[in-house]
Amino acid sequence: MKFIEQLKFNADGLIPAIIQDAQNSQVLMMAWMNVDSLKKTLETGKTVFWSRSRGKYWMKGESSGHFQVVKDISFDCDADVLLIKVEQTGPACHEGFRSCFFRSVGTNGAEITHNAERLATPEQIYGKK
Amino acid sequence: MKFIEQLKFNADGLIPAIIQDAQNSQVLMMAWMNVDSLKKTLETGKTVFWSRSRGKYWMKGESSGHFQVVKDISFDCDADVLLIKVEQTGPACHEGFRSCFFRSVGTNGAEITHNAERLATPEQIYGKK
Repeated sequence: MKFIEQLKFNADGLIPAIIQDAQNSQVLMMAWMNVDSLKKTLETGKTVFWSRSRGKYWMKGESSGHFQVVKDISFDCDADVLLIKVEQTGPACHEGFRSCFFRSVGTNGAEITHNAERLATPEQIYGKK
Repeated sequence: MKFIEQLKFNADGLIPAIIQDAQNSQVLMMAWMNVDSLKKTLETGKTVFWSRSRGKYWMKGESSGHFQVVKDISFDCDADVLLIKVEQTGPACHEGFRSCFFRSVGTNGAEITHNAERLATPEQIYGKK
């Protein structure tokens, strides 16, 4: 895993990871990794991120069952962004959409439209609290 | 352009923008925008970023001719990441590859391989200096 030494993590020790559907190339989400969450991702074969708001590791799917099985990892020319292709189970978005990028504003930004159907409600995914 | 008020820029006033090929869905690059570079993007119809290292705006393609014509802008559930679909002229990467993510490490991170052909050398793109 020598490539990790080439990566440039930011001042907080984090690097953005773009998550892309390996089958249809849809961009599903972006989240942050640190060295250890990247190592856990490599070890488990499933994406593990660092939550900046909660200050902890989280394996995508640990609450929802909507895991992401890693199919390929690449990094960009500046070595400061990761692109991870995955096999996504169910919706990637905690709001129940396949992709977190379900709101479009077209090319002029005038109006927000939903570009996708909601597959499940958050209550269905996580249960009522 | 009311959606801009919904966006969450980071402590430096920046938001990451994932750039995706509108035709084949390849992820081409990620760069950073601030409010004004996003407004310039909307106004010109071409991507304009904020360079953190150079401390200035740059329209993608201004030196290389490899502009990105905006086809759609979306933002994620947390409103802190942009996804911009573009029509890309030539290579997106300053190293001459179509995508900046031309180095893959597979699923185990053991070995770095190039996953794409170089379309041009930096000298061909930017001229010798």
